[in-house]
Amino acid sequence: MGLRPQDVIRRKRDGGSLSREEIAFFVDGVTRGSMADYQSSALLMAIYLNGMSASEMAMLTDAMLHSGEVLNFSDISKPKVDKHSTGGVGDKTSLILAPLVAACGASVPMISGRGLGHTGGTLDKLESIPGYRVHLSLAEFRVILDRIGFAMMGQTAEIAPADKKLYALRDATATVEAIPLIVASIMSKKLAAGLDALVLDVKTGSGAFMSNEDDARNLAQALVSTGNSCGVRTEALLTDMSQPLGRGVGHAIEVRECIEILRNEVNQGVRPVMELSLELAARMIAISCIESSLEAAREKIQLALTSGAALECFRRNVEAQGGDPAVCDEPARLLPLTPHEVKVESTRTGFITGINAAEIGRAIASIGGGRTRIEDAIDPGVGYAAESRIGGEVKAGEALGLLYCRELGQAQTASERIRAAYIIGDEPTSAPRLIKEVITA
Amino acid sequence: MGLRPQDVIRRKRDGGSLSREEIAFFVDGVTRGSMADYQSSALLMAIYLNGMSASEMAMLTDAMLHSGEVLNFSDISKPKVDKHSTGGVGDKTSLILAPLVAACGASVPMISGRGLGHTGGTLDKLESIPGYRVHLSLAEFRVILDRIGFAMMGQTAEIAPADKKLYALRDATATVEAIPLIVASIMSKKLAAGLDALVLDVKTGSGAFMSNEDDARNLAQALVSTGNSCGVRTEALLTDMSQPLGRGVGHAIEVRECIEILRNEVNQGVRPVMELSLELAARMIAISCIESSLEAAREKIQLALTSGAALECFRRNVEAQGGDPAVCDEPARLLPLTPHEVKVESTRTGFITGINAAEIGRAIASIGGGRTRIEDAIDPGVGYAAESRIGGEVKAGEALGLLYCRELGQAQTASERIRAAYIIGDEPTSAPRLIKEVITA
Repeated sequence: MGLRPQDVIRRKRDGGSLSREEIAFFVDGVTRGSMADYQSSALLMAIYLNGMSASEMAMLTDAMLHSGEVLNFSDISKPKVDKHSTGGVGDKTSLILAPLVAACGASVPMISGRGLGHTGGTLDKLESIPGYRVHLSLAEFRVILDRIGFAMMGQTAEIAPADKKLYALRDATATVEAIPLIVASIMSKKLAAGLDALVLDVKTGSGAFMSNEDDARNLAQALVSTGNSCGVRTEALLTDMSQPLGRGVGHAIEVRECIEILRNEVNQGVRPVMELSLELAARMIAISCIESSLEAAREKIQLALTSGAALECFRRNVEAQGGDPAVCDEPARLLPLTPHEVKVESTRTGFITGINAAEIGRAIASIGGGRTRIEDAIDPGVGYAAESRIGGEVKAGEALGLLYCRELGQAQTASERIRAAYIIGDEPTSAPRLIKEVITA
Repeated sequence: MGLRPQDVIRRKRDGGSLSREEIAFFVDGVTRGSMADYQSSALLMAIYLNGMSASEMAMLTDAMLHSGEVLNFSDISKPKVDKHSTGGVGDKTSLILAPLVAACGASVPMISGRGLGHTGGTLDKLESIPGYRVHLSLAEFRVILDRIGFAMMGQTAEIAPADKKLYALRDATATVEAIPLIVASIMSKKLAAGLDALVLDVKTGSGAFMSNEDDARNLAQALVSTGNSCGVRTEALLTDMSQPLGRGVGHAIEVRECIEILRNEVNQGVRPVMELSLELAARMIAISCIESSLEAAREKIQLALTSGAALECFRRNVEAQGGDPAVCDEPARLLPLTPHEVKVESTRTGFITGINAAEIGRAIASIGGGRTRIEDAIDPGVGYAAESRIGGEVKAGEALGLLYCRELGQAQTASERIRAAYIIGDEPTSAPRLIKEVITA
């Protein structure tokens, strides 16, 4: 006798474990429309409240992954490796580490997303480079990946269609924040790129999707366990998102910062982004077995940076994807910021003890530097350059950062909002550790 | 700012209590279609898993009650009182107690349901009386109620429409068995009849919706608390449904049994139905304050039976609702059973220690004496007459009961199924207590 949706819902409702067959029945029903939305959402809520075991999560991921096209780059002999970040404010590591890792001999088939809410998206950032195309055919993507070592594109409708439907339902039914559902959503899309290995950057703090550190750690562990169960070597870094990562928040401004780093023009403001990008890149090289030790991988990545090999790789990718490669030489000219640069001043003297990073992201989004709905257009020149970080000292009247806005009329409200995101106290505090923990299988 | 469905779902998901406004928003959204089914079902699952407080249940009931028409019989000066049973096999008390209570001066506006699955429905039973109409206009219902003291009709589309929609969703999403949802469903429909008081018959045992006694007790307590919170004096009896109630299971056969009782033709087989009907009726009179003590109410009810006043009241109702009143004088002629009467024989000698009452209900339904889908037709002549009860002794070859079937070809399978529903052991066992507990506010 065939399964019925009610039976699957009932089992999870009663705290049982779903079988591979039951999970496949659910995902297949969602993909083909034979499971009614109201049945799916009841099951999603039961999963939210009763959880899933590690093996159920792996089976759910696998079923969602196979609900659509799974790319196969086995004709490319290099190890295929990618990074995924749970998202934050000013998080631009993808643009730095992809050319670094590609320059070291791995293949990085990076399928990225758009920004929404307070976080930016890699695709949107790349599009601030004049001419850069993220809408590639799969054939183009494969050619660029093979020739240059990394290629960047958006998710297609063919990849994990079950996730697309389930995500819309979760959003409408308050079932977004369930670890098994987050894990299956992230991993089904990432693993559809036919990876050998994956490094995850799970963020925690005021600008992260999971602000609580324990929640973020649980998510990281579930992601790592699921990736490995699905046959992809996976590890995760638990990293700080209690303030914007690096200096820039926005689109053109973030790509500029990446190019500065790839050009090895290091200053104090970009140090955290550089540190994290290099560490993630080194771990991608180590987990891909291109180097047998993390130490050797770190040296190799460092050399790819200082030798200019990574910048060269980035330049070739920009050219291959239709962008103007001169962006590597003249970033300030080709990635213009808005005409108005406004100082966001501290109203008092003291030490920066906390920053509401999400609020900075929302302030920039509100003046065109982000989206609240997926169909909104983005102004790439809008942004914020943070001049001070947690642990730093500021004097009244000194700049916390610089705001770039299209119209002067927007300046005051946005500045106020950013200023209010800083907590300034009388006691000194130490800077948060950037990499909090490494989570391996 | 207006409420969003997600916010209401999130609160219940997180174990919070919904406010009156949130519950009204949900029920109104269900009724008007502005809350998507997939949002309603996510909330239903959250309610299933996280429960509802007594005050939430009362607010949910009140909102569902007011999703449609609420009858108002305030122009009828008698107290309005009804009984509701959670359903069982051979449960025919409504037809006995309604005339008893009406004969004692209360007004019983009884809105009943159809049978489904292993349980029968009052409307279906009444329709086995030639000519009897249960589809009354509200005006007719009011006139009959006022003139005779009780009237019987089916639920209309105007009564508690939110319940109809939610019930269909619950059935498809494995969220039927949640006490707050059961309570709101039962009480919103019952209270729509504009009652002053209500007596509930909550059944437990093999033939009941809630076979477990603790579950049934919890349900009874929740029903009583909700009824009283909604301003209707409510109490419940927790009663035994570990075997068919009384002798007959079916339609014509059950109405015959009711008329026998109203005619005061008491034999051993009908004693349990009579006992329960009289007690429920007495409690309806007491809770309506027609008598100030339960003892006095019992005497009054007994007198209505022995004097023939209840039978006379029943006769007048049958006539008013289009039925042939001669059914009261010649039940065997006007309520014919099927041509085939088949003895269901015990295969062994021993004591009856248990009966799967639901299975007997399903066996009768399977040969036309019930429905599996709401659109199925019913054969009123099909039925079963139980000759032996739990605690009784049987010899091999003796009749457990008599099966009435339309075609002889159905006899063997149905007999086998009924026979298998009896557990016959070597040790004597005592008969179960019919009334297990009284639950008051």
